[in-house]
Amino acid sequence: MLSVNEALKLIKQHVTVLADEAVGLSDAIGRVLATDCHSTLDSPPYDKSMVDGYAIRSADLTESGGQFQILEEVIAGAVPTQSISQDTTTAIMTGAPIPKGADAVIMVEYSTRHPESPDVVVLNHDPVNAGTNILYQGTTLKVGDKVLQAGHAISPATVGLLAELGVSAPNVFRLANVAILSTGDELVPIDQQPGPGQIRNSNGPLLQSLVRNAGAVDRVLGVGRDNLDQLESLIQEGLNCEILVLSGGVSAGVKDLVPQALSNLGVKEIFHKVNLKPGKPLWFGIAESDDRKRLVFGLPGNPVSSMVCFLLFVVPAIRALHGGSFAPLSSMRATLTETFKQRGDRPTYYPGVMESSDDGIIVKPLRWKGSADQLTLTMANCLVCFPAGVGEFSASEDVSVFPLPW
Amino acid sequence: MLSVNEALKLIKQHVTVLADEAVGLSDAIGRVLATDCHSTLDSPPYDKSMVDGYAIRSADLTESGGQFQILEEVIAGAVPTQSISQDTTTAIMTGAPIPKGADAVIMVEYSTRHPESPDVVVLNHDPVNAGTNILYQGTTLKVGDKVLQAGHAISPATVGLLAELGVSAPNVFRLANVAILSTGDELVPIDQQPGPGQIRNSNGPLLQSLVRNAGAVDRVLGVGRDNLDQLESLIQEGLNCEILVLSGGVSAGVKDLVPQALSNLGVKEIFHKVNLKPGKPLWFGIAESDDRKRLVFGLPGNPVSSMVCFLLFVVPAIRALHGGSFAPLSSMRATLTETFKQRGDRPTYYPGVMESSDDGIIVKPLRWKGSADQLTLTMANCLVCFPAGVGEFSASEDVSVFPLPW
Repeated sequence: MLSVNEALKLIKQHVTVLADEAVGLSDAIGRVLATDCHSTLDSPPYDKSMVDGYAIRSADLTESGGQFQILEEVIAGAVPTQSISQDTTTAIMTGAPIPKGADAVIMVEYSTRHPESPDVVVLNHDPVNAGTNILYQGTTLKVGDKVLQAGHAISPATVGLLAELGVSAPNVFRLANVAILSTGDELVPIDQQPGPGQIRNSNGPLLQSLVRNAGAVDRVLGVGRDNLDQLESLIQEGLNCEILVLSGGVSAGVKDLVPQALSNLGVKEIFHKVNLKPGKPLWFGIAESDDRKRLVFGLPGNPVSSMVCFLLFVVPAIRALHGGSFAPLSSMRATLTETFKQRGDRPTYYPGVMESSDDGIIVKPLRWKGSADQLTLTMANCLVCFPAGVGEFSASEDVSVFPLPW
Repeated sequence: MLSVNEALKLIKQHVTVLADEAVGLSDAIGRVLATDCHSTLDSPPYDKSMVDGYAIRSADLTESGGQFQILEEVIAGAVPTQSISQDTTTAIMTGAPIPKGADAVIMVEYSTRHPESPDVVVLNHDPVNAGTNILYQGTTLKVGDKVLQAGHAISPATVGLLAELGVSAPNVFRLANVAILSTGDELVPIDQQPGPGQIRNSNGPLLQSLVRNAGAVDRVLGVGRDNLDQLESLIQEGLNCEILVLSGGVSAGVKDLVPQALSNLGVKEIFHKVNLKPGKPLWFGIAESDDRKRLVFGLPGNPVSSMVCFLLFVVPAIRALHGGSFAPLSSMRATLTETFKQRGDRPTYYPGVMESSDDGIIVKPLRWKGSADQLTLTMANCLVCFPAGVGEFSASEDVSVFPLPW
C-alpha cells in the first residue's frame, strides 16, 4: 500500500498552478502574487523626521544644549521652505521632510520655548551625531528594487506594503473551485430527522468548511445516491471545477458505485488506498480534456477520515493550485504528556491537544472513539502521528504533531 | 508609563461580549457559540458496522473459520429484516445497522463465496470477541449530553458535529464592526502619486486587512485631515461601531488634533502611552451612551507601530467582543539563532522568522529598518520580544516569540 508521502508525490505530479487575475487590494489577503513586484518609489520618499521635534545642525548642539531661532513650523504633509543655518531650527512633526541644512532632529520632550520670545527654543540635550532621528530617503525601499517575488502569499503586512507602493489591484493566482459531493443512500439533509438506518449528511457542511478554511471556493453539489446515472450526472457537474471531492462510496462494498461512475466518465485512477488510519480507502484520480486537468479525490465516508484525508492530501493540492508550494501539512515535534497504546498496523493520526510549555511543545492525545467521533475532534487543536509498528509510546517520548489550521 | 500587561488589563475592563444571533452553518466558521449545545441524538443512532463484511454470532467462528448461510444483503441506508442465528450471516456494508442476533462483523477481505452456492460464504478468520467491528449505539454521543459549551469557537470540525446534530443555524455572538480612520494631512489615496512631503495612506488598507484577519467587520471611514470639524464628524460616524481605530495623530505634535476631537465628543481617555517599541504613543479611550460602550484605539501613524499595536491590543478586544476569552497575543519560547543587540530602553517587538527544528523552535530576527519599514514585516512570521534593559542577547538564548496570525 502507498505511504502518505508516496501518495503526496503522485498528487503533486498532477497539480498545475491556475491562471492569474487582478484583484482589489482589500480582497487580496491570502492570495499568492503571480508576478514579481518592484518598488515604484523611494521609502521614505524624502529624508524624514522620525519624531516630533526640532531640526537642527548637529554641530550647533553643545554639552550644555543650545538656544535656537525658530524659522518656521512644518507639519506632516507640508514642506519646509527655509534652510537651517547656524543656531536656527524648524519645528517639525513626525513624518515631515527634513529642511535643507539640518542633519538631526531633537525630540520635542527636550525643548522649552523661551518665555519672552516664542520664536526661540532652548534644547536641553547632549550633543548628537548627524542623522539622529532622521530616516533617510530610500532607507527601506528604493525605486526599482524587487520587493516581493511571485509566489509570495499576501498577508495584512503585504497589503500595507502594496498600498504604500500604490498597487491597488495586485496580480494574483486564481482561486480553485472545489466541488463537494457526498454519496450514500443513508444520508438525509441536515435539517431532517434521520429515519432508521439513516444519518445526516454532516460531510457536506464539514467539507464545505474545510474548503473555505483552505481559501478555495466551495461548490456544494448535494448528495449522490447509490444510483449510477444520478452519480454520473453529479460527477460530470463536479468536473467543471478544478477539484472534485467525493465522500463515501470508496470502500470495497457491493454498492460502492463511485469508482465505476468515475471510470465511465473517463476519470483515470492514480491510486486507491493509502497506508494511514483513519483514511485508508482514499481514492485519487484525474480527468483530462481540453488542456484542463481536474483532480478527483474520493474521501472515506466517515467524517473524521474525510477530514484527515482532506487536510493531508487535498489542502496541499489547493495551495499549489493557488500558486503556493505543494507542501505537506506542516508538522513539529512535541513531547507526549502520557503513555499511549497504538492499536493497528498503520501510521495513525490521532486528535490531540498541544500547547507550549517551558520545556517546549507538549501534546496530550484525546480519548477518541474512532472515525465517526466528531465530538473529540472539536476539542483537538492538532493531529498526533503515531508511526506503525510501535506498540506503546511512553510519556516524555517525542512524536510528530500537525497543528490544525484553525 | 504603563506596561503592555497593565494596558491590556485596562482595556479588558471595558470589553463586554456582543449580543447573539443565529447564523447559517456555512457562515459559522470562526464564530463563537452563545449557548450550550446538547445532543439530540445517539451517535451512532444504532449499533453499526465499522467495515464492509459479514455480520455473525462470534460464537460460530472456530479456529478454522466457518461457513455461513447468507440471509440477506444490507447496504448503508437500508435496515436488516432478519435475525442472525447459528451459522447464518448477513452481508453488511460500512455504516449499516447490525442485524439482531449478530455480535461481530468479519471484514469482506476474509470471505470467499462458495463456488457452487452463492448464498454461502466461507470466512477464513480466527475467532473474534463479541463487539468486533461494531460501533455501539450512543458510543460517541448520547441524547441529552452537553456536547459543546457556550464560548466554543466553531471550527470546521464543529461544523461537522453541528450538522450531525441537525443544528443548521447555531446561535453565536455577533461580530464587531470596526471603524478605521487614518489621519494626517500628508496622506494621499493609494491610487494617487504622492507629491512633495506626502505619502500614500497605506494604513487604511493595512488596518482593513487586520480587521478582516481578526474576523471582524471593517468599516473604512477614509482619511481625517488635521482639521477639527472634519475630524469630529468622521469620529462621530466611527462611534456607531463597537470599535473605532484611528491611526496617526496621537503623538505630542502641534497639530495632533485627535485627542482634542475625541474629548469634544465625550470620548474619555483611559490611557495614553505604553512602554513598548514600536507603539509607545498608543491611546485608548471609551465612549459611553445609551447603554452602549464604544472602544476607541488611537494607533501610531507609522504602519509597523500601527500593526504591532493592533495585534497586541485591538485583537484581544475583538476576540472578547466576539465571545472568546480576552487573551494576549499567544506566545511561545524560541531559541535565537544569532546574537542581537537591543537598542533603546523599552521592551521591543521585532519582526522575525521562526521555524520548528529538531531542537525545538528557533527564531532569527530580521534586519528591520524601523517603524516605517513594511517590507521587512512582509517577510516575518513572528514578532520577537526583547525585554528592556538587556543590551545584548547571545545566540542560543531563549526569547518570547509571537507567531503572526496568518
